Parts: sequence; structure tokens; C-alpha cells
Amino acid sequence: MKIQHQSDCKGYSGSGFINTLQKRIREVVIPYQYEVLNDRIEGIERSHAILNFINAGKQLNGDINHDGFYGMVFQDSDVAKWLEAASYSLIVHPDSDLEARIDEVIDIVVGAQDEDGYLNTYYTVKDKDKRWSNLLEGHELYCSGHMIEASVAYFEATGKDKLLNAMKKNADHIYDYFITQKHPGYPGHPEIELALLKLYRATKEHKYLELSKHFIDIRGVDPLYFENEANDRSWSVWGSDGKDVVYNQAIKPVRQQKDAMGHSVRAVYLYTAMADLASETEDAELIEACKRLWNSIVQKRMYVTGAIGSTVLGEAFTVDYNLPNDTTYGETCASIGLMYFASRMLENEVKGEYSDVMELAFYNTVLAGMQLDGKRFFYVNPLEVIPGVSGLASTHKHTLSQRPAWYACACCPPNVARTISSIAKYAYGESNNVFYCHMFVDGTKTFSNGMTISCKTDYPYDLNIEYKVIQGNGNLAVHIPGWSLENYSVTQNGQTLILDMVDGYVYLEVREGDTISISLDSSIKRIYCSGNVASNTGMVAIKRGPLIYCAEGVDNNGDVLSLFIKEDGDAKVSSNKDELLDGSVSLEIDGYRIISSGDLYSDKKPYKKPCKIKMVPYYVWGNRGENQMRVWMPER
Amino acid sequence: MKIQHQSDCKGYSGSGFINTLQKRIREVVIPYQYEVLNDRIEGIERSHAILNFINAGKQLNGDINHDGFYGMVFQDSDVAKWLEAASYSLIVHPDSDLEARIDEVIDIVVGAQDEDGYLNTYYTVKDKDKRWSNLLEGHELYCSGHMIEASVAYFEATGKDKLLNAMKKNADHIYDYFITQKHPGYPGHPEIELALLKLYRATKEHKYLELSKHFIDIRGVDPLYFENEANDRSWSVWGSDGKDVVYNQAIKPVRQQKDAMGHSVRAVYLYTAMADLASETEDAELIEACKRLWNSIVQKRMYVTGAIGSTVLGEAFTVDYNLPNDTTYGETCASIGLMYFASRMLENEVKGEYSDVMELAFYNTVLAGMQLDGKRFFYVNPLEVIPGVSGLASTHKHTLSQRPAWYACACCPPNVARTISSIAKYAYGESNNVFYCHMFVDGTKTFSNGMTISCKTDYPYDLNIEYKVIQGNGNLAVHIPGWSLENYSVTQNGQTLILDMVDGYVYLEVREGDTISISLDSSIKRIYCSGNVASNTGMVAIKRGPLIYCAEGVDNNGDVLSLFIKEDGDAKVSSNKDELLDGSVSLEIDGYRIISSGDLYSDKKPYKKPCKIKMVPYYVWGNRGENQMRVWMPER
Repeated sequence: MKIQHQSDCKGYSGSGFINTLQKRIREVVIPYQYEVLNDRIEGIERSHAILNFINAGKQLNGDINHDGFYGMVFQDSDVAKWLEAASYSLIVHPDSDLEARIDEVIDIVVGAQDEDGYLNTYYTVKDKDKRWSNLLEGHELYCSGHMIEASVAYFEATGKDKLLNAMKKNADHIYDYFITQKHPGYPGHPEIELALLKLYRATKEHKYLELSKHFIDIRGVDPLYFENEANDRSWSVWGSDGKDVVYNQAIKPVRQQKDAMGHSVRAVYLYTAMADLASETEDAELIEACKRLWNSIVQKRMYVTGAIGSTVLGEAFTVDYNLPNDTTYGETCASIGLMYFASRMLENEVKGEYSDVMELAFYNTVLAGMQLDGKRFFYVNPLEVIPGVSGLASTHKHTLSQRPAWYACACCPPNVARTISSIAKYAYGESNNVFYCHMFVDGTKTFSNGMTISCKTDYPYDLNIEYKVIQGNGNLAVHIPGWSLENYSVTQNGQTLILDMVDGYVYLEVREGDTISISLDSSIKRIYCSGNVASNTGMVAIKRGPLIYCAEGVDNNGDVLSLFIKEDGDAKVSSNKDELLDGSVSLEIDGYRIISSGDLYSDKKPYKKPCKIKMVPYYVWGNRGENQMRVWMPER
Repeated sequence: MKIQHQSDCKGYSGSGFINTLQKRIREVVIPYQYEVLNDRIEGIERSHAILNFINAGKQLNGDINHDGFYGMVFQDSDVAKWLEAASYSLIVHPDSDLEARIDEVIDIVVGAQDEDGYLNTYYTVKDKDKRWSNLLEGHELYCSGHMIEASVAYFEATGKDKLLNAMKKNADHIYDYFITQKHPGYPGHPEIELALLKLYRATKEHKYLELSKHFIDIRGVDPLYFENEANDRSWSVWGSDGKDVVYNQAIKPVRQQKDAMGHSVRAVYLYTAMADLASETEDAELIEACKRLWNSIVQKRMYVTGAIGSTVLGEAFTVDYNLPNDTTYGETCASIGLMYFASRMLENEVKGEYSDVMELAFYNTVLAGMQLDGKRFFYVNPLEVIPGVSGLASTHKHTLSQRPAWYACACCPPNVARTISSIAKYAYGESNNVFYCHMFVDGTKTFSNGMTISCKTDYPYDLNIEYKVIQGNGNLAVHIPGWSLENYSVTQNGQTLILDMVDGYVYLEVREGDTISISLDSSIKRIYCSGNVASNTGMVAIKRGPLIYCAEGVDNNGDVLSLFIKEDGDAKVSSNKDELLDGSVSLEIDGYRIISSGDLYSDKKPYKKPCKIKMVPYYVWGNRGENQMRVWMPER
């Protein structure tokens, strides 16, 4: 049942922790990525993404005097995600220069659209006749999806509809091909399904919802579709034979799927669209499927950091309880997708479980994706890194110990940028005159009824939050995180409230001038893992507020592997506002340093020396050179 | 410096534990494998190995009325290893029926040899012109190596030289091609190097040593050899491009190699030959290289079970201290090769370290390769198996929880058979009138001076050994295992001896009629791993005598993952001669069962319930259905 919706970003202006991040996106990431897309950064893999659009435009105009297509088959999506990130940034922080730059890029993009609405530079430049012949690898629908998302974001930011109209035309073209002309097939990489629902909400045109539903409903009905498609054509991008129906979430119709499977980004993008469609159409069967898939992830296949995808093989989910810490894939984009899935589940039912996971993924894996300076990015987010093994062993080539500057496949950096820029969409929601605070983000927010609240907090470091109702009245629903349910207080104008807790939310009526103070559990908690997870037996993780902590070599004499956390030992905040680490809070935990014999194996019991273990938030790891890093540590 | 040599098998007749194994090889494995090679077993992958030889013979005789070649490119080696195992079995247990069967097979094999001495059914049947054009993948030298080993074994067993002469002719042909005609190249899969040294010792013909030395010395001198070879031909077996010089141990000349690397079976076969050649030629530079590679394995890249090869990717070594327990490759053949390497290192210097590793690999990984009934075999020997993950997750497809009946690539089963049949080669040695007992094997052994000793023991379960000198006198050197150096006794005719310990060996003069009793440490030991190995932090392994123990679900309420071993708790023998497990000794260890919340992650401290943990020798795991299994367990 549709009960609430994502907020738009419009009424939000950030400050505090989130503002720092958004400022970094605005001042570093968006300008840098713009330069990358325009091939103006030396020493990194050439992007060529803007030139691909320019060349596609030339090709369409009969001018073949260009240097062709370069990059991944989905290179267009880098431009789309930049446009989306820049658009959301405009909402929070208007910037006429940036807006002019966006308009220029939009002109280039729209110039690459064919008369019939088709828009994809790979095919337009290389071979128009191959259109739609390789849904398995071709990423045409994926790129359209991202450009649709960009068009909706820019429309939301500025009201300008040039790109929106182009993408409507593009979506109409796709509708015509797949629905009117009844061509078979569905996207190799889900994405357009969720984008079409955004387009539907921006335009109110029902055919976009219908097209989204079509792609969702026919997925996996013919599991052999990709294999037959591969057999029917004489070319391929990467030589995929289409037989791996698990990788593509095509093993059976999505309504019958029970386990989160395959490529983890594809999976959560698909589930996001399913949950969104379920709430739009009040489709009970679909929401049941979503709940099963949600439970499969969060009860059996998710890391304690909100990372998903246990293996580099197919960047994929594996099986229940297989969560290796050192060979984790945990793609940044997958945790972003998990946030999206959570936010759409909140549209179906307001439950703290969804906001908890959204917060967990955001503050840990998504933020870990970006260097503190905004200049380097992790694709892969392991929970243990050992220099000498990580990045070197054949099984660990993907688990780098340092964030690289840019990737040939540059999906994660702009994905982080668009998510941080649009955080208000996830932090706030509203439905039937109830205004939801799902996440605590310092800043000012205006809801659709005109009620404006300010949120003042040093969250996630300080766990006290003060809301002030600057204007208007209304019903506020505030999420009390799962980790604080046993220890929190809410006061309204100084008066402690005893409120019913409904599924992780407290509901209160507020009036202009009210001050609501929320105090959350600031204790340092030990997290234990299910005994079904072999890699974590005997281990403990440390959490404070929404932040998972890790130990890094640089704080612990270069050696984290020999550290044990003391059972029933003390834990305290050691440094508030660590300057080296962007104002984060560090912890000091009672532990032992195990002095083992120099031998690989020995029957001598190792000597145990009491020590203090310094731990820092997981998301700041890898900012101080190459280092051992560990989240789960033995407890003794 | 050459100081001693492997014993031959001739003077040995086994009984006790080893006899039980040899009997199983004789009565079950050798007959079964014979049927397999002759395609008389239903329901398994067709071998066609004997038919390949028959067909090659027909092809050479101009009779092309045959069904061609079938199987792996190295299918011939299955026949060779069967011949070798059967030959060694004949020594211990003469059997005229088996001997007749061997003679028949030898006739077939020799019938497939070309006039010029060339012998390989893949090329002879398929395409003679491709000979020697694919040393990277073609396995011609590998198959020749195994057939040379078989010929030497059969000659040793019976004095019959038909196969030996054929393999001399084959080796002469190879000598002519690579030395006389100066063709470049070296074996993709090392094996012939060690075989040629056996042939040299059996025939005293120096050219075979020279050819072995040639292949060892030119390896890696041109690291691009395989890549250029791949570029120069228009066909391949598996499409290898020859670029992975680590996989092939071809990165640099072997004398300069420092880390054990690449495909682990290839590596230890190569190192075996290097160590053997070094002792034959007193090549100080080569023995130094061998010691470096030995140390690389045993100090940094070997599992506590004597398994080697940390990853399925290339069935290979990875990097120092990367020893995952659940995704171990640990091929049975690799631990057999490690025994060979150890035995050749003992030819260079008598040091307990080598015998210790030989024993460790044998009693744990090599024996684990075979089902107790001798009918099923493990290729891969992980230290942790969790049904639901092992064999299922994309990263764990190779770690099966049950031994399969046979493999398309059937290298391990006959390798186990030949090793067990020839155990006396590894257990005993002699040099300059000193007679070495490296391993304790119940049975009677006659040395070259005529001295005959009997060994009576229930080793590896009972750790007391009694030698009786039945005939002759001599100097006996008995290995005291590293795990017993702090607690052992030796008596001669009831008199306790205080003997100097020299590198893990005690030396005594014995005379006819003497009884020497050795009592070893029978305590249950906790083994701790170096703090550099991330997968074992906080974990402990259990060992008694040479046997590493493991916990299996079937003995522990189906759940091993929730078991913790109690720090400073008791451990005792719970069952002597466990009938279910072939008379093995089981242990009972004080521990805890951790009752965790049903959640994937929880801040509730799990409840700890004292319990007794039953553990069984690692090598018997997987004999009682599908089961959780663990070697390293958390200690608390």
C-alpha cells in the first residue's frame, strides 16, 4: 500500500556534516568529473564521454569527420550521472556558472538524439543497425535510464525541460519498440525501470509507468531470452553467452524470486524499481516479492557495513552467510542501490528497518567510497585489508588498499556525487500530512505544506539532534535508529515526551517555534555476527551511532592482525574531531597485543600483552597511506 | 652435498596402519583404476586411456580403423601412474595375476611408441606434425616423465626391462631433439626432470642426468619462450597465451627464484628435481635455491595440514601468509609433490624439518585425498567446509564436501596409490652405512647391507614404536618428530639411552637381536598460527602426534561454526580405535557452544554454554555424509 514518498530535494539546504560533504561534491568532485568527461585531466584513462555525444551528433548530421566512439559501452551514463549530480547540487546551492555548464552539456546530449528519439552514442557512432540487438551487454536501456534520471533531476532543479522532453521522446521511442511493436527482451542491466517511474511522476504520463511495469514483469519469464539473443547475433561486446541467468536476475519471473542474486548493483536497481512500482500500483504480490528479497539481503547477505556483493566473480551476491571480509566485493554503487531500495521500501511501509539499513549503507560503505579530499574513489569496499595480500594475491586483485584517482569504468564516483547531493530525498519523506525524518541531516527543510524545520546536529559524531519548527505546523515522524531503541529521549520545548514507538518511529504534533530535542544512545557497542557466518566466528565489530569502526595500522604500530579486543573491556571516545580525519570521532578500546612465535605454526601459546586499540570510523580508512585495516577483530 | 638416498621399496613388507592402506590400494584402488582405464565402469566419465594407446599403435601400423583419441591431453599419464602404483604394489605384495596384467598394459603402451622413440597418444593419433610445438600445454614431456617413472618402478619390482628400454629410447629421442638438435624450450608442466634422474639411477646413463639438468637450467632463462611459442603456432589445447610466467615457474632462471609460485603441483615437481639434481651433482648454488624455495613454502605458504596452493585460480600458490581455510586449493597431488621435495631435500641434508613436513603432508592432506573405502577421492583439501557455501558459492565451487568417485582429470587417485604403495621410499633411507628411519611405518625392512629390522607400532594413533633387529648390525638413525622433541625416550634392550640429538635425528649402533623402543609425546597439542595469517587470528588447531584434527558436524550436533575451544581447557582421547572411522583415535576437547541471537548482526552478547567438542583426524573427514568441518577454531 502506497503510504509515503521520497521528499524532493528542493526545500533542503544543508549544513553540518552533510553540508561539508555536499560542499566537497560541489567544489571538488563535480568540477573534477566535468574535466574528466571533457578529457582535460592528464595521466588518467581518457573518458571521451562528451566527445562521444559530440561525435554522435556529427554522425547524425552526416558529418563523419570525427574520431569515433571511445570507452565502455555504457560510457554515456557517466555524463548522465554527472548531470544528475550537478542538478541536485544546484538545488542545494544555486550556481549560475554550473547551470550554464549543464545547459551546454544538455545541448550536446540532445544533439546526439536521433529523429526517432533514439539516444545512445555507442550505437549511433558505431553501427546504427545493431540497435537493440544486444540487450544482454549493450546497456542502451541502462544509459537511457540514467539520462532519464538526469533529466528529471534537472527539471526538478531548474524547471527547464529541454532534456526532459528529449528523454520523454526517447522513452516514447522505447515504448514504441517494446510495447507497440511487441519486440521481446528486457534490460541486461536493470536501471531504466526505476528511471521510468521517476519520469512518470515528473510528467504524470502513465505510459512510462506501463513501460517500467512491462520490463519488470517480463524479466525472467523467458529465462533463455539472453542466451537466444546471443546465439542470434554475430557480434558481442564482451563475449557473454547469456547463459548465466543468475547474474542477470533472469532465472525466473521477479515475483517468484526469493534470494537476492547475481550482479549486486543490477539486483538492487531492479528491486528498487520493483518496490517503487509496488507502491505506485499497490501491487501486493510485488511488495511481497520485495520483502522476500529485502530479507534475503539484510538477514543473510549483507556486510555489517551495509556492503553487498560477496565476490568479484560477476561482482555478485553468492549464497547465504558467505561474507568473507578480505575478498568482499561490496561495490560502492551496490550500497547506493541498497539505499535506493530501502527508500522505496519506505514508500510501501514506514519501518525503521529500512531507514536503519539506508543509514548504515550511507555512513559506512557509500562514504568509504570517497577519499576525504573528494579526489579518489573506491569501487570495492573490503572489511579487511592486508598490504602484501590485498591487491596482490590473485584472489585479492580487486581489494585495493588505496583509492585510485579514476576508473576506466567510472560508475562509482558520479554515483556517490549524485547520492550525497540528493541526500534530502532519502533523509525526508512525507505522506498524508505526516512529515518523516528518516535520517538526521543538519540543515533546513521545507515540506510541501510550507512547514519549515531546521535540524541542528553534529551527527553522526554527536548523537543529539535538535529540530526547530521555523514556520508552520504539522505532524512530524522521527526515526529512532534501531541501535538506539533501548536508550533515547525526546523532549519538546524542554518537556520529556513519553511517545509510542511505532515500527521505529515516534510521531509528534509540532507547532511553529517548537524545539524538539532528541538524544540517542552514544555508547560504544560491540556487534556480534550470526554463528552461521564462518568468517566472523570469535570476532567482534565496534559500532557507535551509525558508524562501524575499524582499526588501522597507522594508529596501532603498523600491526592490526595481532590485536584482540578484550572481552568485557572498556571502550571510550579517544578523540573528538580528529583533525587528520576530517573531524571524525576516534575510539580507544581495551585489548591485547598477541606476541606469537616467529613460526608459521607453533605449539607455544602466544603471549598476550594488554594494550589500547585505536579505532576510527570505517568510512575514513585508507586516507593515511597504505595500511592494515580490519573491521571484525577477535575477542578474548 | 650428497649424503644419502631414498631407499628402494624392495626390502620392505608392510603391516599395521600402512599395511591396511597398502592393502586397500591393492585390493580396491588398483583394480578399480584398471577397470576405469579400460572403460569398464558405468556412470563415470569415460577414460579411454588404454584405448588411446591401442589406437596410437593402430595408427602407427597404418590401421586407421579406430575411434581416435579421447580425454585430456595428458590422458597417457593416468596409465603411467597406474603402472607405477601397481609396480610398487607388486614389491610389497607379489601377485602374478597383477604382474600379467601389467605386462599386457606394457605391451599396449610399447606398441604405441613410434620407431624414433616418440611416445604420446594424443599427438600420434591426432596429428604427428604437431609434436613439440606446444610445450606450454601439450604435456608430452610430462607424460614421458610419468611413463619413465613407471618403467623404473616396474624394473625395480620385477627386473623386467621392456618398458624401461622403451622409455630409454623415448628419453634418447627427447635428448636428440632438445640437446643434439638444440631445439629451444622446456616443459610446461615439470615432471620429466625428476623422472630422468630416476632413469639415470636405474641405468647409470649420464645423458639422462644431463637432459634433466638441461631442462632445469634453461627454465626461465627465456621467460618469453611460452608466449613466443603460443604466437608461433595456429592451434592450442586450452587457448593459453603463455604470458603467465608465474604459473609456469618461468619468470626467471630457477636458481634465482625465491618464492614458491604458480601452479603448486608443477612447482613442487620442479623443486623435487632441482633438489635431486643438486644432491647428485653436489651443486651448491642449486641447493641454496632449493632451500630458499623450501623455506618459502614451509615458513609462509603451507597450511597446517601440509596442504599447499591457496587458490583455485591456476591451482596455485598466491602470496606470503595468504592461507584461507574455506577456499584452499590444497591439491592432493601438490602435497604428494611436497613429500617428494622433502625426500629429495633429505638427500642433501638429513634434517628433521624435512621428515616432519613429509610426515605432515602424508598423514593429513595426502591421506585425506582418499575415502576410507578407497573408492572416492578428493582433489581439493580445504580446512573448512560449510554445506550451503562449499561447492555452491561461485568462489567455492572447487571445495566439495564429499569425495567424488572419479575425475575427468584423474591425476590425484593414481598419485595417492603410487605414493602409498611406495611409502618405504620415503620412510627409509641410507647413506655411508647409516640407515635412516624418517617415518614410522609398521613392517619389516631390509637395508642394502642385509640388516633387517622390524618395526612394530600402532602409529600414528599410538605413539610408541618398537624396532627389532632381526638380522645384521649397523648404524641406525631415527627421526624424532619436531612435535616430540621436548618429550620422548629411546631405550635399547630396556636401557634408557641419553643420545645426542642431531638435527632431529638420534643415532645408535644396533646389533642383531636388539630391541629399540621409542616413546613419543602423545599429548594433545594446541597449534597457534603466526599473527601474519589473517584467517587464523584468534583460532587454534588441535594436533596429536602427526595428526591434525578437525571437528565435524556429525559428531557435534550438526553445528561446528558455533563451537569455541576453551582456553586452558582439558583435552583427552575419547575413543581409541573408532570403528566407524577405520580404527582412528578421536578426541574430546573442552569448549563452548555459542548461542547467538538469530540475527545476522546483534549487539547482544552471545550466550556461552560449556560443552565437549569431539574431534577426529583431519584425514578421515567427509566419510560420514555431508557435514560442516573445521580445522581452525576460535579459542576463548
